[in-house]
Amino acid sequence: MSVNAREMVGVDLGGTKMLLGVLDGESNVLWESREASTGQSEDELVELLVREVAEARAAQPEAAAVGLGIPATINRDRGVAVSAVNLPIENLPIRDLASERTGLPVFVDNDANVAALAEHLYGAARGSENAVMLTIGTGIGGGLILGGEVYRGSTGAGAELGHVTIEIDGPRCQGNCPSRGCVETLASGTALGREGREAAEREPGSVLARMKADGREIDGKAVTEAALGGDATAIAVFELIGSRLGVALASFANIFEPEVFVIGGGVIAAGDLLLEPARRELRERALPPMNRAPVVPAELGEDAGMIGAAAMARSELEWGTG
Amino acid sequence: MSVNAREMVGVDLGGTKMLLGVLDGESNVLWESREASTGQSEDELVELLVREVAEARAAQPEAAAVGLGIPATINRDRGVAVSAVNLPIENLPIRDLASERTGLPVFVDNDANVAALAEHLYGAARGSENAVMLTIGTGIGGGLILGGEVYRGSTGAGAELGHVTIEIDGPRCQGNCPSRGCVETLASGTALGREGREAAEREPGSVLARMKADGREIDGKAVTEAALGGDATAIAVFELIGSRLGVALASFANIFEPEVFVIGGGVIAAGDLLLEPARRELRERALPPMNRAPVVPAELGEDAGMIGAAAMARSELEWGTG
Repeated sequence: MSVNAREMVGVDLGGTKMLLGVLDGESNVLWESREASTGQSEDELVELLVREVAEARAAQPEAAAVGLGIPATINRDRGVAVSAVNLPIENLPIRDLASERTGLPVFVDNDANVAALAEHLYGAARGSENAVMLTIGTGIGGGLILGGEVYRGSTGAGAELGHVTIEIDGPRCQGNCPSRGCVETLASGTALGREGREAAEREPGSVLARMKADGREIDGKAVTEAALGGDATAIAVFELIGSRLGVALASFANIFEPEVFVIGGGVIAAGDLLLEPARRELRERALPPMNRAPVVPAELGEDAGMIGAAAMARSELEWGTG
Repeated sequence: MSVNAREMVGVDLGGTKMLLGVLDGESNVLWESREASTGQSEDELVELLVREVAEARAAQPEAAAVGLGIPATINRDRGVAVSAVNLPIENLPIRDLASERTGLPVFVDNDANVAALAEHLYGAARGSENAVMLTIGTGIGGGLILGGEVYRGSTGAGAELGHVTIEIDGPRCQGNCPSRGCVETLASGTALGREGREAAEREPGSVLARMKADGREIDGKAVTEAALGGDATAIAVFELIGSRLGVALASFANIFEPEVFVIGGGVIAAGDLLLEPARRELRERALPPMNRAPVVPAELGEDAGMIGAAAMARSELEWGTG
């Protein structure tokens, strides 16, 4: 059987959950599991991964390799997760560890890189030579398709698009990022929740304030719910977050002149409430012709990382390159 | 004779001067001219180019093609200079115009792209797979070597690295750039002069203030002269400009994970007075391992654009790709 037709395990090990699937050569999901990853130690995350891969193989014994997407800077040559902003991982030789423990070839990549690969192969960036993908959740991950290939930087640590400074003296960034005013800290789901809480304080008559009074935690999800329900205060929070996102998109447009921007991650549930202010800022700030690049939602939803991780493993097994 | 050995005309058409040379296959300069370009209209710039190419051919009749680097967004397929921040050029079909008028094949590219190509082939980025080059003069131009090739974006308009926002509500950018707080407007030679003039006002005892009192125009060159002479006020201006540059370098480091940053253009005359604060900011702000990328001065000086333009023309003639 050609590698192309073989089954692969794709894993998206995110800051809040781990999605694992066994996919066939046409990217159909044959088996899938979902486990919480919040609050787990490095060792516990490895145990979780090994256990779930074993379960997957019990269900689908033909799986030939494991592709693993992690929200971390990755050293591809050594298969090491060097550091992560939103997971307790540091210099973890995850490729060799997981390979030893599962008995399968394991390939590791940044989660946003594999999500970009998935959208490039099967989703919103299909047919693009150059595409920029942002995954907006707890943090902001970046994936680049340049000249039809995933661009990963010199050792695989590149494309950290969430960590570009848009406000030179802005707030300290999240987790292990030492910078200030990164788009991640100003326009992620975390920022959405923070701005939502401040707006609820400022606007006691808003739906957001009432949700808070009812004991609801005001996080990105709550702000999205209120905004989709028509709350002007929550919509204004999306205006702010979306326009900050658009400032970063304008910079990326000037840098890459991409054919398309693809926006994924949990925050995209708000749809055009997020994307319209981002598009407006892009149109107003980027140089022509770059200011005309379309900004579209990801098509593969939360499965993008898992699908891309499996595709990356397939490509590595076949060509020695993801 | 193989294309590799043939002579090429390389032209660097900058905002203040046009450098034109005839180069042999080993990039030796056989003939060279330098003309002022400041204040010229679009038509006058084309005339100047045609006249100088004719002179070059009178001296070196073997020249086989013209490579042209322009500080403008370029449409490579159509050979059009779409728009320029620091030259009065808009939708100029310069490739076909110049080709008709000179009778030679003409190839057009962004000036910073060809400077990056030159540094990659012959200068400070030799041997690098991934390198980021900034040319800091009147504006800030960007050139990208990714995977060993010049990255130009989807139509050739990309790599406008000077137009990334580092201060979301910062000052309006220069020329035709509609954005705010771009690194170009905060850390170019123009910014250096502006900050120098403000510092001269604030510090009446400084060398800068005395230069001003003596009737000297305080521009980037004057600030550089004062700083190299030890004036603390001028050195502090370089601290400010260099640290802003470093903020952009940290973003580029996180995006590209380059093996090297190469800094060229007139402002690099200040050497480490500019580069040290930039390096410090890069080390402090970028994620590991990207924060360790070296920041080095360009090696080819003001000839980089001309050399790269000739190399690009040679590559186009031979391979159909620059």
